[in-house]
Order: sequence, then structure tokens, then C-alpha cells
Amino acid sequence: MASNAFGTIFRITTWGESHGKGIGVVIDGCPAGLALDESMINLELSRRAPAGNNPYTTPRKESDAVNIFSGVFEGKTTGAPISLVIMNKDHDSSKYEPIKNVLRPGHANYTYIEKYGCFDYRGGGRASARETACRVAAGAVAKQLLLHFDIELVAFIESIGSEKIVGCESLLSNFHDLRSARDQSLIFCPVAPDSQKMIQALEHAKADGDSLGGVVAFAANGLPVGLGDPVYEKLEANLAKAMMSLPATKAFSIGAGFSASEMLGSDHNDTFFIEDGLTKLSSNQAGGTLGGISTGEPLFGRVAFKPTSSIQKKQASVNLSGNEQDFKLPVGSRHDPCVAIRAVPVVEAMMALTLADALLMNRCVQL
Amino acid sequence: MASNAFGTIFRITTWGESHGKGIGVVIDGCPAGLALDESMINLELSRRAPAGNNPYTTPRKESDAVNIFSGVFEGKTTGAPISLVIMNKDHDSSKYEPIKNVLRPGHANYTYIEKYGCFDYRGGGRASARETACRVAAGAVAKQLLLHFDIELVAFIESIGSEKIVGCESLLSNFHDLRSARDQSLIFCPVAPDSQKMIQALEHAKADGDSLGGVVAFAANGLPVGLGDPVYEKLEANLAKAMMSLPATKAFSIGAGFSASEMLGSDHNDTFFIEDGLTKLSSNQAGGTLGGISTGEPLFGRVAFKPTSSIQKKQASVNLSGNEQDFKLPVGSRHDPCVAIRAVPVVEAMMALTLADALLMNRCVQL
Amino acid sequence: MASNAFGTIFRITTWGESHGKGIGVVIDGCPAGLALDESMINLELSRRAPAGNNPYTTPRKESDAVNIFSGVFEGKTTGAPISLVIMNKDHDSSKYEPIKNVLRPGHANYTYIEKYGCFDYRGGGRASARETACRVAAGAVAKQLLLHFDIELVAFIESIGSEKIVGCESLLSNFHDLRSARDQSLIFCPVAPDSQKMIQALEHAKADGDSLGGVVAFAANGLPVGLGDPVYEKLEANLAKAMMSLPATKAFSIGAGFSASEMLGSDHNDTFFIEDGLTKLSSNQAGGTLGGISTGEPLFGRVAFKPTSSIQKKQASVNLSGNEQDFKLPVGSRHDPCVAIRAVPVVEAMMALTLADALLMNRCVQL
Amino acid sequence: MASNAFGTIFRITTWGESHGKGIGVVIDGCPAGLALDESMINLELSRRAPAGNNPYTTPRKESDAVNIFSGVFEGKTTGAPISLVIMNKDHDSSKYEPIKNVLRPGHANYTYIEKYGCFDYRGGGRASARETACRVAAGAVAKQLLLHFDIELVAFIESIGSEKIVGCESLLSNFHDLRSARDQSLIFCPVAPDSQKMIQALEHAKADGDSLGGVVAFAANGLPVGLGDPVYEKLEANLAKAMMSLPATKAFSIGAGFSASEMLGSDHNDTFFIEDGLTKLSSNQAGGTLGGISTGEPLFGRVAFKPTSSIQKKQASVNLSGNEQDFKLPVGSRHDPCVAIRAVPVVEAMMALTLADALLMNRCVQL
Repeated sequence: MASNAFGTIFRITTWGESHGKGIGVVIDGCPAGLALDESMINLELSRRAPAGNNPYTTPRKESDAVNIFSGVFEGKTTGAPISLVIMNKDHDSSKYEPIKNVLRPGHANYTYIEKYGCFDYRGGGRASARETACRVAAGAVAKQLLLHFDIELVAFIESIGSEKIVGCESLLSNFHDLRSARDQSLIFCPVAPDSQKMIQALEHAKADGDSLGGVVAFAANGLPVGLGDPVYEKLEANLAKAMMSLPATKAFSIGAGFSASEMLGSDHNDTFFIEDGLTKLSSNQAGGTLGGISTGEPLFGRVAFKPTSSIQKKQASVNLSGNEQDFKLPVGSRHDPCVAIRAVPVVEAMMALTLADALLMNRCVQL
Repeated sequence: MASNAFGTIFRITTWGESHGKGIGVVIDGCPAGLALDESMINLELSRRAPAGNNPYTTPRKESDAVNIFSGVFEGKTTGAPISLVIMNKDHDSSKYEPIKNVLRPGHANYTYIEKYGCFDYRGGGRASARETACRVAAGAVAKQLLLHFDIELVAFIESIGSEKIVGCESLLSNFHDLRSARDQSLIFCPVAPDSQKMIQALEHAKADGDSLGGVVAFAANGLPVGLGDPVYEKLEANLAKAMMSLPATKAFSIGAGFSASEMLGSDHNDTFFIEDGLTKLSSNQAGGTLGGISTGEPLFGRVAFKPTSSIQKKQASVNLSGNEQDFKLPVGSRHDPCVAIRAVPVVEAMMALTLADALLMNRCVQL
Repeated sequence: MASNAFGTIFRITTWGESHGKGIGVVIDGCPAGLALDESMINLELSRRAPAGNNPYTTPRKESDAVNIFSGVFEGKTTGAPISLVIMNKDHDSSKYEPIKNVLRPGHANYTYIEKYGCFDYRGGGRASARETACRVAAGAVAKQLLLHFDIELVAFIESIGSEKIVGCESLLSNFHDLRSARDQSLIFCPVAPDSQKMIQALEHAKADGDSLGGVVAFAANGLPVGLGDPVYEKLEANLAKAMMSLPATKAFSIGAGFSASEMLGSDHNDTFFIEDGLTKLSSNQAGGTLGGISTGEPLFGRVAFKPTSSIQKKQASVNLSGNEQDFKLPVGSRHDPCVAIRAVPVVEAMMALTLADALLMNRCVQL
Repeated sequence: MASNAFGTIFRITTWGESHGKGIGVVIDGCPAGLALDESMINLELSRRAPAGNNPYTTPRKESDAVNIFSGVFEGKTTGAPISLVIMNKDHDSSKYEPIKNVLRPGHANYTYIEKYGCFDYRGGGRASARETACRVAAGAVAKQLLLHFDIELVAFIESIGSEKIVGCESLLSNFHDLRSARDQSLIFCPVAPDSQKMIQALEHAKADGDSLGGVVAFAANGLPVGLGDPVYEKLEANLAKAMMSLPATKAFSIGAGFSASEMLGSDHNDTFFIEDGLTKLSSNQAGGTLGGISTGEPLFGRVAFKPTSSIQKKQASVNLSGNEQDFKLPVGSRHDPCVAIRAVPVVEAMMALTLADALLMNRCVQL
């Protein structure tokens, strides 16, 4: 099946390898009439690739600039497919030559070779996290659509390794402040003291040639009641698929998540009350949905990322000839010490894509 | 969009309300030549509705029997759609009349009414967990297909409330014993002392008119390398969607799950070695996939269920006229004290459906 | 792939064999709030199976009655899947036993056996035209939806064998009269003298143990401008797929059809003018679309049906053992002398299904 | 819905406007291991845009050259999406300015404006036939896949205006000769005297500032028995959708087509016989399928194209202000006198895409 596409009405298809000519995404199904230009998208892309002097994301400078190749006319979308292309810089792939025949622990080259009979070893090819730049670019368009309906999004680092923000749900009361605080942190963590502790943990892991995992929290505000569909197209089901399609993800939760399994029903149930004539929920254990459909409360969930599998340490492995051979990254290879950091804007993008699709689908359910 | 279907090649569509004439599922895309009869499906259905005297699942007797209406000829599937129908018993829906205009905390009636302008209040209509019987019936067919390829599945209760099996991954070394132990427990928990503690917790909650959440673990053995597709159709992404489409689910994880976010890369990476000439993994932190594609190691993950939202206690709520009104279940209403228990065979079914689809899709990827 | 489904948002899945327990269809994606009951559907079904004494359609009495198993509550659709079931009468399939191992000229048993390794020989199984009763039942629901938007449909016999209505486009000026005239003909031909000639041709073919082909014309009135999508989802493309998915179809056309290929551009182009302040088209060579999108003019097209392949004459063939063996239908077998007649309501149904889907999809294209 | 994509397993998505930066197509689902380079694709593209001195297709020189941006590594496909990009030449769109507010008879600008609230008037934007270059590029990849299975394709002009090859089915006995003869004709007509007559008709229409329609015949050889699926995914249904998604198409037929409606069953049925131990068909009225599934006989059908709607004559029309205003193409505008000619390689491409998808889907139907 076509496995490089996401969404039904607002549907994206991404393409490109990390060390090929370029990468890109086609957005099919974006409504006509949405204001869009390249600067809006580049702004989002720049968040994925922070300043070159940030030691907590890969130091190589990815000054990605997007080209809108189609779908926009006189500053607005036309309803035609929007083709976004990001050309790759010239890469020296020669350093990958010596390790191209060894399985990389925690990486996809083993399964790709078995499935397809080949693997584009230059920088990970299609399995590279570089593909997520296309998600961010498409997500930028989805965000424009959501903004049109006054829906705003945020994602941030909740934990790295064992360092964690306690009670991060309280931050959701003010999205503006939350985003502001987050953007002042080199690692997208909105609570300064926690950010500092996480940075120390990262320094420690880096010094050791090792890596750390982390958790990204995500939230949306301003959703109407009614997004998401019953049974197999529940909003959280599509969000879960969206997030678990990201590289290095190991878990997804909404609302109280795994903690809900330890609660009593009388504690977990959010009760209803009336405020200013409107139906409201007294709490938001559910995380913004009931029966798979948005309640109008803030959407809230988490995604867990494993530690970066590319580490500087030597690891036992085998080669394509079927013999055991240690795997060691080439000298000079650079990798994020924690992939969750750079994933923050990507999680935001996947949330945007999922919600934009749900928003459009919701137009068809009632006479 | 059509929201009552799951899968691409092996695709199911379910229908039916809990208190309507019946429920059913159409399986479209099952290969021809698979041995199938009603008893195979009824066996699975009976696991979802344990003996009537089991106090830990709803006491009402659901002696569901499936009818194969199409798709099987002379004992084998023909490639035509398989229509499975389960007729409903006559229900007395009158007890729901008094509460039909009150929002039920933790339930879907609020969001359905807002989305569709109506709600089938009799027993939950389409939002009822009764829909999952169709998943189990279809899953029984998927399991037959997987068995043909020597793939076997298991799901079991790992925790209820705060009672939990410690180190349940070790149980995966022998699926036969694991299933056996599980089936001796009234609550599908394969470790007898833990099962006993969980039952006590359930008794306590029931006596209090309250409910508990729980976690269901799932695993598959015998998968070939190669199931699942890159990028948006990763095996764990489709499993996550499958599981998060179940009622009452709040979280999904694969392998080490959220714990992976607290580990070092050097601890989390599974390394490769050679055994009997075959490539093997020294551990299975990943839970059976790399890059979204099965590694041949056992697939392993978890699903968290919230506590049953239907409890005997009175809860604050509002009614459809927009006034505050407490919600209280009718006397004599019976509900599972913990929905995770009955979800065990359903989780197994969703795993079967996801894997059957992945297995068929994998036939198209290489010349 | 799942090949028993049609449509994207308004999506149907059909199941059932001609001589199995029953047949049915699940409609997924019908909006909530549509008035619906079984009598509306049965009315359409009765048009497909005209009075038992009609010699021009199969004499066996198909007094089909539909059961709505789900999706309707208090007389209206709820947004849940609508499951329609038609139970089969007991069939004596024994007469098919002697011919079950011989390929039937013009039939699907050859290709089914090659593709699936099996064939349900009893009455054609899944390849039987009986499946089209499900299309008519689902089409009845789609028609209700279209009626809500004041869209009305018609299909009729334009030709049988070499007998043809000349200039049938002129009949489209009054749908009410057209339907009336059609329903007075035993063969759905709205022009009485032509109907009479066609009936004579049918009598002649029947007497000879032979069969005839025919053409069904279809039209819709009241379409808004804008149905259908650019490029691959053009309205006529989806109509063509819909019609060519019917058994025995050999050609599809819209507007002037093949005749357009013989015209000059200056003759074929429909020009625009203003009437009462509205943009109108001076003619309708296009048949109601431009660029794959409805113009607001009547939709108009044709479907060609081959002569019924089941004839009373002996035909050369081969058997499953790989030897030549003549094929002869069992004595007493009864088949329509011209399948196009019974196809009239089915063509109408496929048009309804295609338009209902296009109508819902059109809600998502503009801000 | 996403309307710019075609196919299920072998799935293409096209993008780009005629006068934008470029056009392109992403092929998702092509199996790994297929030899592919740019020259193979450029060869097909050059057939769509014949030598600049061909007076029967638009004289503007479209020296399109494709860039493979992804999906090919070391000369072979990898299973990753194949992104093909064709950059546009700089266009002077200023000549379209004066007519941008007038509806063009036979064109899509009316329906696009109504549907989307906007229209990219520069050269037709997305509605331009330039989009079909992407179909040809993707079709070249599909053809490579089909060639791997020894399936070969051909399409050719059967008629232009009222000039027609009589009995063109006889040409199918030798695909090599047929292609050869076709490629010697400036208008892809394989019978030289007919080609000459058609050219005269074209000259006449051109001199008159008018245009002609035409019919393209298509055929495939070497298909296995079994391609196509029952009911809604019949091979001819998907072919019909493929062809009717092309600009300017008005009709589709398979085998005897509309003529079948005038035949007796005993004349139309193809009978079976044994040759060299294999089951064969004595004739091919059906055009290569039975029950929607390929029989192994040559696939054969036709597509009718309307006359080019862009003509040099003045035509009555209305403008966007709602007033009547004649439409006249700018001086110097150049358009094909008959779009069917340039459509020949496009029809071949759509056939290739449909068959490649059917071929892959057929791998999933039997144990």
C-alpha cells in the first residue's frame, strides 16, 4: 500500500531521502482561499532546526528553505495540490561507506533490507528523521487552516530522561505564556528550572557518548465539540497513529493516560456543569474527547520517545554477510543527544494535520 | 468519512446498536481458501462473554451466536465478503427512558448529540462496547489467517487499579503456558497471586459502587521480518490506531513504552548477534519492530483502559435543556467493574486484524 | 483490496451470494437526520423486480423485502452505519450440479476459478446480478439524501438490440412526465411505439432461445454547480466507474459521448448566456459537467449492456478437467432476455450513490 | 477528498499548474528492485510532445525533461516514493490577462470559479492538459513494472472526426508491427491511408479556425488471468475511471462496446476451446475480461475525445461580472486541432497505471 501518505480529506504525501536531491510533500485537499506564503512555512521549519549553536540538537546547520511549487495563486490556496520542495545540500556520504554493511542497533536498516532487499545507507535514506521536515512544512499549512477557525496548538518537552515537569497540565491555562516560556528554552521546556536540570542530564549523556529519551506533551485549544468520528476513526485513534508514525516513538497517551488505569471511576469521570449558559466539564481527565469526539475542552496528550539510537559507543552487531561485527559510528558523526527535543515542532505538526482532517470531515455528518 | 471500517486489504466494516435488531461485521478482502466455520468464531465470542456467574464482567448473559451469512462455501472462504451477523436479544430499553435527557459523565452521549443532533440512548447505541463483539468475530477470522502462517497471539490483564504483574515480559517465553494460565483466571490475569489481589480490589470497588481501570498487555509470536511499512503505515502506528479505537482506552505503548523515555541509548538499543546462522536480537526493548517494521522478535505492547465510567454513585451533570441535574444510573443497571477484563479478547482481535492486513500488504513490496 | 465497497464519504459495502442465506449492504457515512424507513427502500426494490407476470424480466418471483438492521432511530438516520439485509428464499441449487464443472461462455466462472481457486456455482454466487439488489437498496437511501437537496434522477431504456428511441435528450425537459411514461412500459421505455417495437424484438429473441443487449440512459436534475473534483475524481470518472462496475456493461458515455468525437469544436462547445441574472448554457452537449465538475445543467449519459450471456442454445466450451465439453443450461433455467431492462433502476441507484458522495465531498473545498 | 491521486497500492499523486514553477508526480507503492532512470521516462514524455515541427499538435516546444528526486538508488527503485519533477519554462502569461474574466466555452474556468471561488487563469492552471505529462511520467514507471512481467501495451488513433480505421481489432495480432506503423504517423494512426485522410481533415479544420474530436483505441497483451476484482473494482471499471479522468473524454468502451448492445447473445458470447492443453477463447468480443477479471486474452477498448474546446472562432459567453461578453482567444494562441492525438501516450499511461495496480492487488487474493 501507499505508505507515505497521511490523512483522508486533508491528505499529505511525503517523499525524499536524507542524502538524495531533496525532500518534499504534496498536500492534497487543502480548501481554497487560505492565505499562504513561503515565509509562514519557513518559520515553522526554523523551529525544527534551531540555531546552529544549540548543542542539544544536531549541530550541522540545516538552513532549510521551502519552495512552494504549486497550489498557491495570488497569495492564496486554490484548492489545487500544494507541492512543497526542500532541496538538500550536497552531502558527503562517503563516511557512511565503511558501515554500510553492518546492522545498526536500534535502526531500521535491518528491517528495510529484509523487506525491500536494499537500503539507502546514506544518512538513513527514507528512514531518516529528515523526513519529518516535510511533516513540519505540511503542518504549517494545516496550522494556517486551524488558525482560521481560532484553533491554536502547542507542544513542549515534559521530560528528558528522569527529569520531568511536575503537573504540566496547569500550564495549559495560558497557551500564549506557555509558548513564550517554551521558546526561551534551548530544549523547548517551558519551566526554566526543569529545563536547566534536563540540560545538565543531556550534558552528562553527551560526555558519555550516550543518549537520552524524553516525553513531548501536546495540546490544542479552541476545538469545537464534534471533531473525530465514532468507532474506528476516533480523534485519539488518529492522533495515536499520527504520533506513533514518528521515528523513535514508543508510547502515546491522551488525558490521564496510563495513570487512568490506576484510578477509580468516581475520580476519573469529568462531570458536567453550566457556566454562562454553556455546558462545561469540571475537569479534563479525559484529555478533550469523549467517545472519540472532541468535547470542546483542551485536547491534551503525550508521546514518549526512546533515546537516540545513534550513540558514540561501540555496540555488538552483525553484518550483511551474516557474521558478527561490532558497530561503531564514523568519527565526526553528529547526532542529537535526545531526539525528543527536535520532535517538539513535529508533534505539533502531526497534531495540526490530524485536526485539520477531522475539521473538514466534520462538515459531512449532519443534514 | 466512513468511520466504521478498519484495514486496507483485509478490511472490516461493523454495524449495529446495542439495543437494535442485531450487530454485525463485513470482512472484505479475506483471501480465498481459508477453512472457516461458525464454531471457530463462537469460541472467540464466548471468551469475550465469560460464564454468567463471573462477577467481574457484566452479569447479563450474552450468549452470542454468530451467523455466517456469506463468503464461505463448502467450508472455506471464497474471496467474497464474509458477512457475520449476531442477532440481539429482546431488550427492555424502558429503564433508560428516565435518564435519556441527562449527560452521562465519562460517556459519549454529550459528544454524539452535539455532533449528530441525536443519540440512541438505549444502552449506548453505537457507542456501546457491544460493538466490540464484532471486532472479536472478525478477529477470529484474522486469527485463522495468521495461524495458517504460524503466527500466534495472546493478550492478558497486566494490571487492575494499582495491582500489577511485575516483569510480565518474562511470560512471553511460552505462549502456550501463558494462555493456559490466563484462562484459569476469572479476570484473564495469568499470574495467580496477582489475579487474586486484583479480584480483591475489584470486590472493594464494586462494594463501593465504583469502578477500576486496568492495563492489557498483548503479544504476537512467529511474525516474519518485514510486516509494517515505512513512514505513515508503521506497524506500531496501525496497532496504536487499532487499540485507541477501542472504547475507554487512554494510552498505548510498544516495547519499553514510556519507560524508554527514561533510559540511556546504550541500555535501550537491542544489539544483534548470530545464532544458528540467523540474525537475532539480544533483547527486545523495541517490542518487535524497528523503523515501523517487524524484526521477527515477539511483538509486545500495552493498552491502558480508564475505569468504567458507569458507576453506581450519583454524579453532577446537566440535561439537554441546559440545566444542571445529577446523573444516577437506574436501579438494577449492571456494568463491568473494570472494562479492561472483557477487553482482553478484543485487544487480541485488534492485533489480529492489524497483523492480517500487514501480512497481505507485505506481498506487494518487492519484485 | 477490499473490492466490495463503493464511495468515499457516503460509502457502501455489499455482501452475499445469490443462493446463500441472504444479501445485504452496509452504508457508512450517511448524514444524521434523514427520514428513512423500510417501505421507501422496498419501493425501489420492487421496481427492480417487476410484477411476476412480466415476461421480459426473469419470471421467478423475487419478492425481496429489506430489513433495516441498524442506523435508524425514531424514523431518522443517526449517522451510524445503516445495515440493510435481504434474506434469500430457499433455493434448489441442485439443477446447477450437472454444469458446475463447465465454463459458461460470457460468464465469470472461468475467471473466478482462476483467480480464487474456487467458484460458488449455485446461481452465480457473488457474480450474480442479484448483488445489484443491494445497490438499489443503498441507492434508495442516497436518493432520499438527494431529494433533501431537490435533486431528482431518472434512468430509462433508450435501445434494445437495434430498436432505439431517436432524440431521447428531448425527453429530459420534464422529468415527471418522463418517469410516468417510463413506468407505463413493461420494459422501462418511455416512448410507447418504441417500447412496442423493442418488445417485439425481445419476443423474437426469446422464441429463438437467444438474448439481446440494450442501452440505458440516465439523467439528473437540480444539481448545484460544483459537484465532482478536478483531475482523478471528475464526476464523470466516478460515474463511469460506478456504471462499469455493473455486470454486463460494455460502454459508458456522457453528453454527446462517442458522437462528440465526430463533431467540430464550434458545434460541440456549449456557449454561455445570461437569463434572469443567472449564467446558463445554451446547449448541453457536455452532458452536465465541465472539467469534471457539474455545471448545473442536467447530467446526462448512457450505459451499454451486452446481451444476456445465459441463452438456451448449446455453446462450445471446456470443463475444469481441461477437456472440451459443450455448455447447455439446465432445462427450466430462466433468465432475462435482456439484462438492460432490469438494470434501469440499478443505473439510477449507481447514479444516486455517486452523486450523494460528490455532494458531501463538495462541503470541504472552500473556506 | 484528495482528488489528485490515482491507484490503491501503486498510487500516484500529481501536482502543478501549467504556468506555475513546475509540475510533478509522486509514485507511492512501486515495488523495490525495478531498474529505472530518467532516460526511460523522458522517452515516454517525448512521445507526448512530438517534434516541434508537427503541425497537428501544439507547436510550442515542450522539451520536458524529468528529474527523479527520490526513490531510486544505484539504478533501482527502493520501495520509497518516487518523486518526479518537470520544471516549467518561463511563461509569458500576460496574453491571458484580457480574457481572464470571461467564461471559456467548453472549458473548466466556469466550474472551478464556482467551486473554489478562484481560478488560475494562466494557461488553465490545474485544468490544463499539461497535467497529463505527469501521468505519462508515472505511466513510464508502471510500464517498466509491467514489462518485468512481459505485459506490453499500445494505444493509437482509431478515428479523427468522421475518418476512421475500419476493423482495427485485426491490428492487435502483432503489437510490434502495430506500434511501428503508429510511430510512423504524425498523428499516431497506424494505417497510412487513414492517417492521410485524417491529416486532411485536420488541415481543413485548422484552416477554418475549428477543431476535431477523435477516438483512441488501447490494448494490452500478456496479461495473466486474474487481474481485476469482483463487484466494484472490476478491471474495466477502473480503466473507465482512469480514462474518463482525462481532460476532454466523453466515452469509454471495452470490447465490442456500444455495438454489443445491438448484438444477439449467441453472437456476442466468446466460447471456450482447448489449444495445446490450455483454455482459450475463440473470439474476444468481451475485450479481455469476464466478470471484471482478465481472461488472458488481449485487453481492448476505446476512449472518445471531444473536439478541442479552444478554437479561433468567436463564441458567445458571459463574464464574471454577470454580463454577456463574447469570448475570443488572444491572437497567437496555439492549441492542438485535435486533443486525441496527444492523448495517445496518455491513454497508454493510464492503462499502465491501472494494470500495475491490479497486478499488485492480485497478490493478496488466495492463500
